[in-house]
Amino acid sequence: MTLSSYEAAGVSVERGDQFVARLKHLVKRPGHDKLKAGAGGYAAVYPLTEARWIALTTDGVGTKVLVAHQFGQHHGIGIDLVAMCANDLICVGATPTLFLDYYATGTLNVEMGLALMEGIAAGCDQADMLLVGGETAEMPNVYEGDHYDLAGFAVGDLSPENLITGTTIRPGQRVVGVASSGIHSNGLSLARKLLTEESDLRLLLEPTRIYVRPVLSVLKRHGAAVHGLAHITGGGLRNLFRLNPDVGFDLTHPLPLLPVFEKMLALGLPVEEGFKTFNMGMGLAIIVDESQAQAVADDLAAAGFPAHVVGEVTDARGQVRLPAYSITVTHSTP
Amino acid sequence: MTLSSYEAAGVSVERGDQFVARLKHLVKRPGHDKLKAGAGGYAAVYPLTEARWIALTTDGVGTKVLVAHQFGQHHGIGIDLVAMCANDLICVGATPTLFLDYYATGTLNVEMGLALMEGIAAGCDQADMLLVGGETAEMPNVYEGDHYDLAGFAVGDLSPENLITGTTIRPGQRVVGVASSGIHSNGLSLARKLLTEESDLRLLLEPTRIYVRPVLSVLKRHGAAVHGLAHITGGGLRNLFRLNPDVGFDLTHPLPLLPVFEKMLALGLPVEEGFKTFNMGMGLAIIVDESQAQAVADDLAAAGFPAHVVGEVTDARGQVRLPAYSITVTHSTP
Repeated sequence: MTLSSYEAAGVSVERGDQFVARLKHLVKRPGHDKLKAGAGGYAAVYPLTEARWIALTTDGVGTKVLVAHQFGQHHGIGIDLVAMCANDLICVGATPTLFLDYYATGTLNVEMGLALMEGIAAGCDQADMLLVGGETAEMPNVYEGDHYDLAGFAVGDLSPENLITGTTIRPGQRVVGVASSGIHSNGLSLARKLLTEESDLRLLLEPTRIYVRPVLSVLKRHGAAVHGLAHITGGGLRNLFRLNPDVGFDLTHPLPLLPVFEKMLALGLPVEEGFKTFNMGMGLAIIVDESQAQAVADDLAAAGFPAHVVGEVTDARGQVRLPAYSITVTHSTP
Repeated sequence: MTLSSYEAAGVSVERGDQFVARLKHLVKRPGHDKLKAGAGGYAAVYPLTEARWIALTTDGVGTKVLVAHQFGQHHGIGIDLVAMCANDLICVGATPTLFLDYYATGTLNVEMGLALMEGIAAGCDQADMLLVGGETAEMPNVYEGDHYDLAGFAVGDLSPENLITGTTIRPGQRVVGVASSGIHSNGLSLARKLLTEESDLRLLLEPTRIYVRPVLSVLKRHGAAVHGLAHITGGGLRNLFRLNPDVGFDLTHPLPLLPVFEKMLALGLPVEEGFKTFNMGMGLAIIVDESQAQAVADDLAAAGFPAHVVGEVTDARGQVRLPAYSITVTHSTP
């Protein structure tokens, strides 16, 4: 195992998967059958009434908090927090509406906290969510000094007819890739091991792109043709299999690598590990009928979100082929 | 400033209040006028439709995580996490329904994590909530080893006619106090400074009592007579002023102190500081019409939740008088 793997950076995807598998059994209770299965498990979908469903999700920003702290740049990570949640909600077809934050720190640094909260408020503006609550906790001895962690919680509105399940994904459908703004907020523990120069570490700070507005617009115009949306988070391209494990993907025209990823490859990150951990330039993938794929990509680009048709769904179960890099990312961790 | 104050323990209520005050201005956005004012700000109340409202809250368990870690007792703190959120939701009149957790740790300890999650699931059972989602994050360098932090997010159902605002609280109404099970999950940083013997520290581990079922039953039977509910969290009796800052309270018959509080008083905790930081034996206060107060207390006791009429609402604005201890807890931090 080399330095360039996520495991070696102290984060174990396998350990996490094992935990989650045992958890599922544990937390299952009467009443769970009320939940609706949204694509990829990106959000829990709960029917308040037959006609009125809500989607809920929670997420954090990982060790990006350490980079933010190192450079004293806290506004962007507030945006990241909202982005991680809002981009998950849209993957099940929900419209993000409400957000709450949890901010825990050793000793409250008021100015730092306000910069964070301004970022969260700015993210909520971008995602058209209301920031309706939050908790600020001083926890000396858990966090060192004014170090902190953040958790976000988001609720979205979902009409039953808009639920995206991923079950209609079929070979021949196209994959529209939407450009990321950078590393977003996943894989930071590995990235921080690879990048040591200050100028490189600064690349990590770029806030996560929030896809809410252009995606809701795409769903409004082309909803019937959209079969799945995958927010490319930790696990990289393996997120595609969250939508549907029974198909494969040929990504013959991937989005260009951003400088932060080129840098990591140059520093020894194996390309396959890169695509299994990071978004590598594609922050969101949309599975669309062939007939509408170009129109969807054009709409996104017109809205200022670079996107193009990056490939198609295949019957090569559990495989994402990237011929340009001569690699195949498989479903199960090798 | 002595060791026995919360400030000296590294947690500043004033700093927190200052932060929250500046925050309110910051996060206010168009759309916030849609929110309904629930008593004490215990939860955000959002109208999905005119007839269907939801209440939302988030909370953590503070530095109780350190005590749990020290003794390797993680089940109870899962219950605490749910309790802190669920007990807040009922204060605005909501029925808790859905829960999500955020669990961040340096290196995932699968067995520890499962014990935690079992506790969370048990808490959700007690509160009749569904655990619908969560996030588990490995964050080396933010958390040391398998140390961790937890955040909870809870959603409740609320019919508009059930909203409790605290605005109808008037002098003469009674205060029904409901016994706590221990320190619950607030003031732990101070308690951990005071208590050093292992047997004393173990007292801190007792999980927070979850008041959901008996309170919902009280609201069903005596709802029209209930004017406010205060979950006694950080800030101790000052939580009463969250309901209504224009009145005072005479607590002539307080609930008995539990051993954990007696111990801290014996170790030098000033009694006033105790009532300003801890629940001191009363985990929930219910403001009720005089005519129904005894019936409410009896119902709670019959359900296995020790409770009695501890006092009444007065016109002594901003003062909680405790004649048995010859102290007065005031609204503003002295």
